Amino acid sequence: MKISEEERNAVYKTIFSRRDVRSDFTGEEIPENVLKRILTAAHHAPSVGFMQPWDFIVVNDSLTKQKIKRGFDQANLASKAMFSEVKQTQYQQFKLEGILEAPIGICVTCDRERNGPVVLGKTVKAEMDLYSAVCAIQNLWLAARAENLGVGWVSIIEDDILRKALNIPANIEIIAYLCVGYVSQFKDKPELESAGWLPRRAVEKAIHYNKWSEEQGQQ
Amino acid sequence: MKISEEERNAVYKTIFSRRDVRSDFTGEEIPENVLKRILTAAHHAPSVGFMQPWDFIVVNDSLTKQKIKRGFDQANLASKAMFSEVKQTQYQQFKLEGILEAPIGICVTCDRERNGPVVLGKTVKAEMDLYSAVCAIQNLWLAARAENLGVGWVSIIEDDILRKALNIPANIEIIAYLCVGYVSQFKDKPELESAGWLPRRAVEKAIHYNKWSEEQGQQ
Repeated sequence: MKISEEERNAVYKTIFSRRDVRSDFTGEEIPENVLKRILTAAHHAPSVGFMQPWDFIVVNDSLTKQKIKRGFDQANLASKAMFSEVKQTQYQQFKLEGILEAPIGICVTCDRERNGPVVLGKTVKAEMDLYSAVCAIQNLWLAARAENLGVGWVSIIEDDILRKALNIPANIEIIAYLCVGYVSQFKDKPELESAGWLPRRAVEKAIHYNKWSEEQGQQ
Repeated sequence: MKISEEERNAVYKTIFSRRDVRSDFTGEEIPENVLKRILTAAHHAPSVGFMQPWDFIVVNDSLTKQKIKRGFDQANLASKAMFSEVKQTQYQQFKLEGILEAPIGICVTCDRERNGPVVLGKTVKAEMDLYSAVCAIQNLWLAARAENLGVGWVSIIEDDILRKALNIPANIEIIAYLCVGYVSQFKDKPELESAGWLPRRAVEKAIHYNKWSEEQGQQ
């Protein structure tokens, strides 16, 4: 099956305009068929040995969201304190989650024991199953962008908070908590870039040929 | 920036027709501007605290590829032995890499110390930088599919082989070795699904609401 030039351009438009969204959620409901489409896109990610280790817990219950929000607040306070005083001032100005404003959250998990103890392709690199779940997240993120839905990955929260709030068994790895919803805008640039927290690295510095090259590899 | 319905369909077409490719490489050269486009798409993945921890080592040198191929052969022999006798017979029929046939390999790495010891968003979940590098891989994979380029992730190889062959410093994490090239076809289904190694899990089983539900979560 051939992808045309027009279709290719649509993929690039989606990739380059995707953002990590923490504000600007409009609160508009996500139709069930749209939600199903982005989860199906996630489910069609590559997975090591075709193990499909992921699960998706859709969170739309307000009390559950509040528990998760409290977990974020706690972790964020502790996290802020890890930065220098100068950085702390800037840090606390960032909005780093949209847990309550987004109509849904999606917790993405990884069942590391799915389909038995020996998995094709995971015999040497044990973390391949975790990486498969992350591929599912990126599929979901791009599918959501193509639906004009914003997604924000909340990483400042202890796994235990999510495990208790969502009743996730001890043997299931928690990969991500995503806030998903329609937004009033997708910003032109990542917020941390616009705010001057860190610059965009030149892509040329990230590309090496045949050998790691320190000159190019370093910032 | 709005994504139209046509553009959205192009994204889904790309997501659903993406394959993990290990054969059918035609050997056709990848134009430099096409390679630059897919690496730029990778570089525009989300990254925790905007740290952009990834690097891409493009491998087109034939001696280097041969070293990597020997590393795969060794690891694959050891891996095969980990399966039951019945499964071994099927396992050895699978072609699990296209290292020599693909015009280029791309080794994707993660510099976990980039931009200093404390990274926004990585204060609680230390593996977020590794996951950012995986998001870059999935962006690359989909961009490549949109360029009608096949990608295969070779996970059956020891990091040390890649580290020595590509001169990767000890402090840089190796995430993936990808074989990339034009292909004569993209198969309708994943090869492991067609071969009956494992079935496609119903997406409904992967979706839960507000709580992990064992009935749905289990296969």
